[in-house]
Amino acid sequence: MRKILRVDMGKRECRFTDIPKEYERLGGRGLTSTLISLEVDPLCHPLGATNKLVIAPGILGGTLSPCSQRISVGAKSPLTGGVKEANSGGISGQKMGRMRLAAIVLEGKPKTDDLYVLVVTKDDARLEEAGDLKGKGNYHISEALREKYGSHVGIASIGPAGEKLLAAASVAFIDKDGVPCRHAARGGLGSVMGAKGIKAIVIDDAGTKKVVQAADQETFKKTVQEFIAVIKERPRVKNRLPIYGTAGLVAFSNEVNAFPTRNFTTGQFEEIEKIAGEHVGELIDERGGERGHTCYHGCIIGCSNVYMDKRGKHLTSSLEYETLGMLGANCAIGDVDTIALLDRLCDDYGVDTIEIGGAMGVAMEAGVLEFGDGERAVEILHEVAQGTHLGRIIGSGAAITGRVFGMTRVPTIKGQSFPAWDARSALATGVTFITSPQGADHTAGRLQGVLEFDRFEPGTIAPLSQGMQVSVCVQDTIGLCQFSDGTPESAVFLARLLSAYYGEAFTVEDFIKLGEKIFRTEVAFNRRAGISLKEDRLPEFMLKESLPPTNAMFTVDQEEIDSAFAHLREDNED
Amino acid sequence: MRKILRVDMGKRECRFTDIPKEYERLGGRGLTSTLISLEVDPLCHPLGATNKLVIAPGILGGTLSPCSQRISVGAKSPLTGGVKEANSGGISGQKMGRMRLAAIVLEGKPKTDDLYVLVVTKDDARLEEAGDLKGKGNYHISEALREKYGSHVGIASIGPAGEKLLAAASVAFIDKDGVPCRHAARGGLGSVMGAKGIKAIVIDDAGTKKVVQAADQETFKKTVQEFIAVIKERPRVKNRLPIYGTAGLVAFSNEVNAFPTRNFTTGQFEEIEKIAGEHVGELIDERGGERGHTCYHGCIIGCSNVYMDKRGKHLTSSLEYETLGMLGANCAIGDVDTIALLDRLCDDYGVDTIEIGGAMGVAMEAGVLEFGDGERAVEILHEVAQGTHLGRIIGSGAAITGRVFGMTRVPTIKGQSFPAWDARSALATGVTFITSPQGADHTAGRLQGVLEFDRFEPGTIAPLSQGMQVSVCVQDTIGLCQFSDGTPESAVFLARLLSAYYGEAFTVEDFIKLGEKIFRTEVAFNRRAGISLKEDRLPEFMLKESLPPTNAMFTVDQEEIDSAFAHLREDNED
Repeated sequence: MRKILRVDMGKRECRFTDIPKEYERLGGRGLTSTLISLEVDPLCHPLGATNKLVIAPGILGGTLSPCSQRISVGAKSPLTGGVKEANSGGISGQKMGRMRLAAIVLEGKPKTDDLYVLVVTKDDARLEEAGDLKGKGNYHISEALREKYGSHVGIASIGPAGEKLLAAASVAFIDKDGVPCRHAARGGLGSVMGAKGIKAIVIDDAGTKKVVQAADQETFKKTVQEFIAVIKERPRVKNRLPIYGTAGLVAFSNEVNAFPTRNFTTGQFEEIEKIAGEHVGELIDERGGERGHTCYHGCIIGCSNVYMDKRGKHLTSSLEYETLGMLGANCAIGDVDTIALLDRLCDDYGVDTIEIGGAMGVAMEAGVLEFGDGERAVEILHEVAQGTHLGRIIGSGAAITGRVFGMTRVPTIKGQSFPAWDARSALATGVTFITSPQGADHTAGRLQGVLEFDRFEPGTIAPLSQGMQVSVCVQDTIGLCQFSDGTPESAVFLARLLSAYYGEAFTVEDFIKLGEKIFRTEVAFNRRAGISLKEDRLPEFMLKESLPPTNAMFTVDQEEIDSAFAHLREDNED
Repeated sequence: MRKILRVDMGKRECRFTDIPKEYERLGGRGLTSTLISLEVDPLCHPLGATNKLVIAPGILGGTLSPCSQRISVGAKSPLTGGVKEANSGGISGQKMGRMRLAAIVLEGKPKTDDLYVLVVTKDDARLEEAGDLKGKGNYHISEALREKYGSHVGIASIGPAGEKLLAAASVAFIDKDGVPCRHAARGGLGSVMGAKGIKAIVIDDAGTKKVVQAADQETFKKTVQEFIAVIKERPRVKNRLPIYGTAGLVAFSNEVNAFPTRNFTTGQFEEIEKIAGEHVGELIDERGGERGHTCYHGCIIGCSNVYMDKRGKHLTSSLEYETLGMLGANCAIGDVDTIALLDRLCDDYGVDTIEIGGAMGVAMEAGVLEFGDGERAVEILHEVAQGTHLGRIIGSGAAITGRVFGMTRVPTIKGQSFPAWDARSALATGVTFITSPQGADHTAGRLQGVLEFDRFEPGTIAPLSQGMQVSVCVQDTIGLCQFSDGTPESAVFLARLLSAYYGEAFTVEDFIKLGEKIFRTEVAFNRRAGISLKEDRLPEFMLKESLPPTNAMFTVDQEEIDSAFAHLREDNED
């Protein structure tokens, strides 16, 4: 039976319990959101003692299932005020799976501002004082902790931004190389960890079995082999991800006029070739970086990359589409090295590159710095870590930055910055941003660049988003990397995988029911937290301004959206 | 027939129209809130072209009715995101009443960042360029405009805070001495005026009749005489307001443990004698200031004062209870001269003393400055006007300050700072803060220090607040100063006054119906704006921490509140 580790930071006590019945068939997002919903007062302050931070591998974490080792972090979000789940790659999900540890739950609030490292082994958990890590970045932390606890451990940590309780703060996870470049980035979960006084969590799976067995291991293995074959045949896995990574989407997004440029004033960037995946790939090759990099041993896709600086020294791992979009085009920064440096600093200081890109774009429009001024952007990112007043503003995210500077063009939904997809061109993904209980979030159900087609018929757009979001709820619960899957239709395959894992029938109906239940749970939590359905909307400026150069408008009917999501919102009294 | 002046800032056009039927029997808050509700998209950005700023005298503005010359300002609030009405004393309400100008409505948005003065006369309205006033404070503006347009005009203006679009920005109105010390302070309405590009409004009533006639002027005059006699007999009018002003409440509030001290950590201030009304009065007398000062000619109460500095020079007019509380005890500043200087700077730069006091208290707890450091508080207030990053944070109010510094103890409801009444001791006033569509607002229906008794029976508290709030809705619509009235029972008298004014029956039932309709309109607007009823609540820390030294807790049942307000919330779908 899987365990839950509860850490009471008020009493500084660690306690393992058997997983309770209500969480038994859950993992990842399904577990974090259900636990938050059942145990956290929706009206509590996100940084107070009442909130809980939950870290959970997916259901199939530790099994042979490919691309199933993602790790979810959940809490009431300081950014959106609603429930939040952000998941990450790296090696920790697999390790927690092997340890049969369904979740680590950080509770209460320390009485002092001391910082701790939580060390979790197969049989034990303890809090160790971490005063020496105070103020340190994730790169330093991971190195220091790997030295101390061994290079085999998984590490989750927060940088200075999380310590400073900034709403754009992320939780960093190391990859297989020990680099803290994988982040549960969105929604300010790093500040919740900071409020709990936990600087890092060491996940030491020494002594566990390498592979978690399924109930029907033979069928499971067979299904896994089939699944691997299917994944490897997907066009984007064959043609794009291992070659260009997610950066391969840059040119596509720009072509369909969906690439946010200069704080969402246009959908195409004039310096697109300078930051497109093709050019990033050339620079990687030239400088001895790595394409097709994997974030954990056993990944069969390799969407990541390793990007070196001009001297051939490691600068950042996985320079991604969203970062190239939000810290690149959105800030009119057309220089890959500058964007890569910003990316590294975000990873090191522990902030979400998307949220910071959104905030920086707003600050640029406000005249705090010029569009395209990468040098000043780098300085401001240092200020985020230092906690200067400007640093705190930017580190609080795009919505707060907009409020402080009195701006009307602020690309957020439910207080969270848009990722690098403009809803006026990426209509279906836009519906996801609008309706997701997570706020504007591409991982909640992106459709542009995922489905084989990019133009959708009117009337089908909201239903597509709805189906995708429900499917993603289950994928995030399984621990599945979205690059392995990503079509609403693949429920059939995943249901077979779960059937073999549980050793009892798990149908497509069960799959959809589970996804809908998680989505409903999140919507209901948000409603109880005071987030009105009126917040399911684009910011006013996006509805009123068309998006050059194609002058795209968001044309999906409100009625289409309401009707597609009605069954997921019912029973949610205000 | 009264007129409405509409100023389209996009086209720079002024247009007078007859008052439309739906606004005919409205004035003040009733008119501003109804107009916002009917004409403004609740989901618009408060600083965008879609929002409107409405300035309206009360129904009885310009008549002989005593204490009936207040002026209301309304808009969708940049601070709360809901409908906002803030009203002010001074001479402008009376003048607009005389001019039969029911409202000035600022609409649209200018295409450049030029600033304008709107000059309104009996027959005309025009926009004049006001580049020379850019960045100037309200003291300079009122002097310059009185010099240019005559000392008889009324003036509404914004300081640098409004120009900088800060959410704590107020709209200043001059008093009878030409001093811009009367403010429609709450909810950031000054930033809406700033977004419209209007630096000041000159209200020139030359050529109008001195007194607006009632339909039944004889009965009206008789009723007015009776009303004056009643007002003059009220204990607080006889014994407190002309002598100590609102500052006379300081000692009382402290005694009942309701005086916010050190960011709402205690209800009593150890230096209370140094800032109590009695001491303020002594300093006024010593330095040749004025007690019993009136804000317009004809006021029969004189709650205001004129406070001089140590050299006997005018420092500020009306040093008030709320300012002594929020910029005094709440910041642990026990020096009247410092508080008076802060008050003057707030008036001059155009910010709400309550909101700034709330923000400053949060910043002090965050360690930005020390509790009690008045000198640094003064510097930071200068920074608000300069628009430094810290100045912008503080100038954005308590809620944003709390977000930026990651604080959990933030005394706000619906994004607006508490006034100087701690809900844990002032239970009935606390219910008003919780339930008012205006956010935490003492003018929406204060009960402590207003009713003849201060302890309320359980079960009666929420109904008392409800009755008072409905009554206040009508008072704010009439243009009535709350010090002339202030008991829910006085509806009888006000109904008689309106009957004589209209020359047709206006019953107590009509009075209550009108108040309830306004309250319902505001609640409904907020719901359409996405403000959930879940925001009708105290901040978590106030519910969890008891308030020393009496260790008071907020003990009013949620059920009592819900039941008292149910009929005002119905028909409001989410």
